[in-house]
Amino acid sequence: MPHTSHRGQFMPESPIRKLVPLADKAKARGVKVYHLNIGQPDLKTPQVALDTLRNIDLKILEYSPSDGFKSLRSKLAGYYNKFNIEATEEDIIITTGGSEAVNFAFMSCLDSGDEIIVPEPAYANYTAFAIAAGVVVRPVVATIEDGFALPPIEKFEELITPKTKGILICNPNNPTGYLYTRAEMNKIRDLVKKYDLFLFSDEVYREFCYTGGPYISAFHLDGIDENVILVDSFSKRYSECGIRVGALVTKNKEVRKNVMKFCQARLSPPLIGQIIAEASIDTPAEYMLEMYNEYLERRKFLIDGLNRIPGVYSPIPMGAFYTVARLPVNDADQFCAWLLSDFEYEGSTVMLAPASGFYTIEGMGKNEVRIAYVLEKEDLKKALIVLEKALQAYPGKTI
Amino acid sequence: MPHTSHRGQFMPESPIRKLVPLADKAKARGVKVYHLNIGQPDLKTPQVALDTLRNIDLKILEYSPSDGFKSLRSKLAGYYNKFNIEATEEDIIITTGGSEAVNFAFMSCLDSGDEIIVPEPAYANYTAFAIAAGVVVRPVVATIEDGFALPPIEKFEELITPKTKGILICNPNNPTGYLYTRAEMNKIRDLVKKYDLFLFSDEVYREFCYTGGPYISAFHLDGIDENVILVDSFSKRYSECGIRVGALVTKNKEVRKNVMKFCQARLSPPLIGQIIAEASIDTPAEYMLEMYNEYLERRKFLIDGLNRIPGVYSPIPMGAFYTVARLPVNDADQFCAWLLSDFEYEGSTVMLAPASGFYTIEGMGKNEVRIAYVLEKEDLKKALIVLEKALQAYPGKTI
Repeated sequence: MPHTSHRGQFMPESPIRKLVPLADKAKARGVKVYHLNIGQPDLKTPQVALDTLRNIDLKILEYSPSDGFKSLRSKLAGYYNKFNIEATEEDIIITTGGSEAVNFAFMSCLDSGDEIIVPEPAYANYTAFAIAAGVVVRPVVATIEDGFALPPIEKFEELITPKTKGILICNPNNPTGYLYTRAEMNKIRDLVKKYDLFLFSDEVYREFCYTGGPYISAFHLDGIDENVILVDSFSKRYSECGIRVGALVTKNKEVRKNVMKFCQARLSPPLIGQIIAEASIDTPAEYMLEMYNEYLERRKFLIDGLNRIPGVYSPIPMGAFYTVARLPVNDADQFCAWLLSDFEYEGSTVMLAPASGFYTIEGMGKNEVRIAYVLEKEDLKKALIVLEKALQAYPGKTI
Repeated sequence: MPHTSHRGQFMPESPIRKLVPLADKAKARGVKVYHLNIGQPDLKTPQVALDTLRNIDLKILEYSPSDGFKSLRSKLAGYYNKFNIEATEEDIIITTGGSEAVNFAFMSCLDSGDEIIVPEPAYANYTAFAIAAGVVVRPVVATIEDGFALPPIEKFEELITPKTKGILICNPNNPTGYLYTRAEMNKIRDLVKKYDLFLFSDEVYREFCYTGGPYISAFHLDGIDENVILVDSFSKRYSECGIRVGALVTKNKEVRKNVMKFCQARLSPPLIGQIIAEASIDTPAEYMLEMYNEYLERRKFLIDGLNRIPGVYSPIPMGAFYTVARLPVNDADQFCAWLLSDFEYEGSTVMLAPASGFYTIEGMGKNEVRIAYVLEKEDLKKALIVLEKALQAYPGKTI
C-alpha cells in the first residue's frame, strides 16, 4: 500500500470534529444537544435569495466565468463602496466560498517555506490552508486578559525573518469577536509597509459590529494598496453558507494574475450559488437590521449569562457571533467531551468548541472554549443553565 | 510591492485562455465564432434536474456535510454498481467538481517533490494541480501515429525513480478520445502493483464510449484496491458543469482520512449542486440514449469531415467528445490565433484548442489541435467548411 502524503497526515484534526461522534451518540441516547459550537447562522436566508433560487429558468447548467459573473462582481463592488472600500469589479475575483479565497491567496502569494504571522486564537482552517501551501504559521498570542486585543506590535516584529511574507488577520474576529480599532489597524499598516508584507484580511463578519466603534477594513489603510488581499464571503451575512460563494479582492494585479490561474484550473465557481449571491445583495435593509438586532440581543444575553456563572469569564465581543470564554476547568477538551459523553441536565447538554483548536501553540487555550450565539434566546437561556449545572458537577474543576 | 509566489508565476497560462481576447474581438467585429475549443456540452440538462432545482424548498441554505450528503453518496454508489464498480457510500467523498477531487487526491497522496507519470497529451489542469501541490509531472508521450494508444509500458518504467508515487490516466481520454483496452489497463495494473504506486484514474467520460469495446474502470483491476483513486464528476454526463459536483472514490482508508481533512478545511461542497446531482442520477434511460446517439453521430460526421480535408488527420476517437487532429500547419498556436484575428469565411470563423496546452514537453503538439464536438451537426458542418477554407488561405501551411 503506497504511503499517503505527510502534509495530509500532519494536518491536525479539529478538536470539534473529534467531538462529533460523541454528540451523535448523545443524540442517539435521546439527549437534546444545544449546539454552541458551530458557525452556521440559524436565521432564515433572505426571501429575495430563496425566491431567486425558485425562479431560475436555465436550460443548461453550464460553466460560468472562472472569476465569476461580471454582474455579480459589479454589484459586489457597489456593496463594498457603501463601506468605503474603493474596489471595482476588476479587483474582485469570485471564489467557491471564503475558504477558496484563503487557499488561492496563499497559493498565489506564498511559496513553500514562506512564513506568515497570525494573531491567535485564530480560525483553525487557516492552518489547514497553510499546510496545503507548505506555508509556516508564526503565531502571536492575543490573551483573554487583554480581551483579545491586538498583541503588542513588538511581538510581531520579533517574529519577522527573511521568510516572512505576510500577516493574516480576521476582523471582526472569529473566534474571539474582537474588532480591531483604528489605532491597531494603523499599527498593522505600519508593519506591513515597513517590511513590505502581504496583509491577508478576512472580513466576512463586517456586518456584525455591535459597539458603535467603526469597522476598519484593510482597504481603509493608506499606502498599502498593493499589499492587501481581502477575503470575503456571502455565507454569514445572508445566512447562506451552503451556496459556497466568496470573493478575493485586491488591487495587486500580479496577485490577481496568479489567482486567475488557480481559478481557471478549477474552471468556475458554483453557478447557482452566484445567482443567489447576486440576488442577496438586494436583501432589504429591514432584514439586515432585524438580523443585527437579534445578534446584538443574544450577545448581551450570552455574555451576561456567562459572566454570572462562578469561575467563568468572557470578554465582551465587539463583533461576529462568537466569544472565547474561560472556564474553571483543567482541560477544556476533556470537559467538552465529558459534556457529551457523561453529562445531562433535564435531558439536555451543550456542545462547545474547545479553544485549543484555535491555537497552533501546544497547550494554549486549555481552559477556554469558543461559544457561538447562533441559537434563539430561549435556547441560549437553557444552554447557559445546562453549562452552569455541568460546571458544578464536573470532576476536573479548578474552583 | 511584495513578490507573488513562484508557483503562481510558473503555472502556465493555457493557450486557449490566450485566445479568448482574440475571440472576443472577432465577435465584436461581427464575426460568428464556432466554438470547437470547449468542453461544455451544449445539450439540455436533464428535465428531472431542472425540475428539482425549481422545487427546492429550503428556508436556510446551510452547510452540508464535508463529505457530501449521505443520500447522494449512497445513490452514487448504486450508479457505480451498474458499471461493476464495487464502491459503497463509505468509499465516496463528494467534491466541488472533479477538479477538487484531483486537487485533494494530489494533496492527500503526494508531497512536494514527489513524481507522477502521466501519458500525454493530457488534460492541462492536471499540471496546474500538480504545481499547486509541488508535484512533478513526468510525461510519457502517446502519439497520433498510434492513435494515442497507451505508450509502451517500458517508457513508463524508464521514468520510475524513488520519487515516483503514482500514475495518472484519463479514460476515456480528454483530449484524445482514446479508450484504454483491457490489455492496456492490465499493463497499468501490473506496473502499479510492481512499484506500489497510486493510480489516479479520471473517468468522468465513462458514459461516452462509442466503439462497443468495454469501458475498463481502474476499479475493475484486480489486486490494486488500495492504490486506486477514482476521480468523477456529474458535469459532463448530465450536461451540468455549473453545479460543481464531483467525487473522489477510493477503498484506501488512509487516503480517505487525509482527503477528509482537506474537505473539512473547505467546509462543504455546494448544497444546491448536490441536490441537483442526486436528482440527476434518476435521469431516464431515454435521455442518456439520445445524448449518446447524438454524440455518436457527431463523432462520425466530424472525423469523416476532418479526414477529408487535405493534409488533416484525426484518429477515430473511441470515447469522450474530443479528438486531437493533425493540421498541415507549422504552428497550431499561431494558426488558432490567426483564425480569430485574420480570417473569416462568409462571416464566420472557428476557435480551436492548440494541442500544445495538453503537453508539458516544450514543442510537442505543434501541428495538433483539440476539437470538441459539442455543437449541433449543422454547425459542425459549417465549422468544417470554415476550417477547410482557412487551411487553404493560411500562409503558414506545410503542404
